[in-house]
Amino acid sequence: MAGGGGASATALVTARAASVAADIDSAFDHLLAVPDDPRRRLYEAMRHAAIGGGKRLRPLLVQAASDLFNISRDSALRVGLAIECIHVYSLIHDDLPAMDDDDMRRGKPTVHKAFDEATAILAGDCLHDLAFEVLADEETHPDPFVRVELVKALALSSGPAGMAGGQMMDLEAERTRFDLATVTRLQNLKTGALIAFCVEAAAIMARLPHEARTGLHGYARDIGLAFQIADDLLDVEGDPDLAGKALNKDAAAGKETFVSLLGVEPARERGHMLVAQAKAHLHGYGAEADLLRAIADYIVERDR
Amino acid sequence: MAGGGGASATALVTARAASVAADIDSAFDHLLAVPDDPRRRLYEAMRHAAIGGGKRLRPLLVQAASDLFNISRDSALRVGLAIECIHVYSLIHDDLPAMDDDDMRRGKPTVHKAFDEATAILAGDCLHDLAFEVLADEETHPDPFVRVELVKALALSSGPAGMAGGQMMDLEAERTRFDLATVTRLQNLKTGALIAFCVEAAAIMARLPHEARTGLHGYARDIGLAFQIADDLLDVEGDPDLAGKALNKDAAAGKETFVSLLGVEPARERGHMLVAQAKAHLHGYGAEADLLRAIADYIVERDR
Repeated sequence: MAGGGGASATALVTARAASVAADIDSAFDHLLAVPDDPRRRLYEAMRHAAIGGGKRLRPLLVQAASDLFNISRDSALRVGLAIECIHVYSLIHDDLPAMDDDDMRRGKPTVHKAFDEATAILAGDCLHDLAFEVLADEETHPDPFVRVELVKALALSSGPAGMAGGQMMDLEAERTRFDLATVTRLQNLKTGALIAFCVEAAAIMARLPHEARTGLHGYARDIGLAFQIADDLLDVEGDPDLAGKALNKDAAAGKETFVSLLGVEPARERGHMLVAQAKAHLHGYGAEADLLRAIADYIVERDR
Repeated sequence: MAGGGGASATALVTARAASVAADIDSAFDHLLAVPDDPRRRLYEAMRHAAIGGGKRLRPLLVQAASDLFNISRDSALRVGLAIECIHVYSLIHDDLPAMDDDDMRRGKPTVHKAFDEATAILAGDCLHDLAFEVLADEETHPDPFVRVELVKALALSSGPAGMAGGQMMDLEAERTRFDLATVTRLQNLKTGALIAFCVEAAAIMARLPHEARTGLHGYARDIGLAFQIADDLLDVEGDPDLAGKALNKDAAAGKETFVSLLGVEPARERGHMLVAQAKAHLHGYGAEADLLRAIADYIVERDR
């Protein structure tokens, strides 16, 4: 089990990922149609950030978890679109000069570089709203209870008890030296919460009882940490051209990471251990969970 | 009718406004309890912006519109809290150096002055999430359909087709000379959309048929514009100490406003005309709409 799928897992993931990425691009193209009025620049900035590029790992995870419960691909796509709205908004704001001050993202200039800071702040804010607008719309799911549960879970995952809280801890990491427990908590919030929502969203759409969600929660927590460890490894070992962004930023900022605290090889081992553990959480599922298993393998094997 | 309530209207509004303001402060105090971890600074920044000060006009409007339909004060308060989350987040972001670059707000340093820019961006982002978390929670209303409709309407009012779209037009106003029609549309988005949501929220909670909402929509549109005209007048005539913020900023930035386009006295007349028209839209309601009528008068008579 721990060996992973290797080439076949990567092939399974990349085929489905390409289809999801095309669907997400097309959904953004529709959602962000440029109006013929003075808001044109705002929409162009959102399109710059949202369309083209990006691994679309989160929408793929929603599809994979939805496979378990025969949830319609349209519903899964709408939820994936909402999550990408949040993910892209967070990248726009994190890249701002006052935050991580990045010039490149996905191989293109960041929004504040291609446009300006004010437009970048507003473009992020607008994508933030669009996430909730998409989830609340009846196109996403016919049951209003499901829609409002999705809204609540996403707001929790992205707000101060989730992603944004983790980003605040990340800012503090430049001022304080964090230990492994605190870095783990930081990453559980900063990247883990939104990844967990991808899987939780399928459970919400399936109206799965809370006590039946334990395995999925374990899977999500483990791949979230494995994803971050892989990111930390790519930050020190990766190819900036493939990544499409600056690397080696954490060490330069004096921030502790899994790699700085554990060392390269022990971090890599921990990543593989987490992937094995994530897949073990899926023992109750059959072939319908194969894509989830392949994503777990892909997460530590990817080169960008 | 056009004469308005004068002193008695102001008294009615200020009494109820004081009670609403106390409830909102207490709800924020509860919502923003400071955690004992590295996110402390984030919560302190949100508290700095959200608690104390502010007219709380929007939550008051929700209460006044809820009076028409016997909606519980608790539900109206939760909706008012969500709207204040959006309003306060937008003030934090609008005050940033890249946007309006303001140092003072509600008589206190703005968040980026009291803390720093990164914390201000994140504090705004977090209040943005909390708005939707509050609305989606069953404490707000027992009916999930009502909650998800509230979420959708708020996302529309605050996003690119509402407040944030208006703020983008406002940025463009420094580069282009807008005519009266464009300034009206800008203000309908920038301040009107969220004010309209305050009234619409009561109609949603009452599950009022759409065809029965025309009068309320007319009222909201008219007081939204009257509010902005009063703001423009205060910007040229007001007392910065009472306002708790810098004034005369629009003229300095070369932006057209209702006052610059119409002149002071015609703008004042238009404000009073809009208030009379707003109250005329309420002709189908009796004494239960007295607070809405008094708010319309107060909006153009206030000194801050």
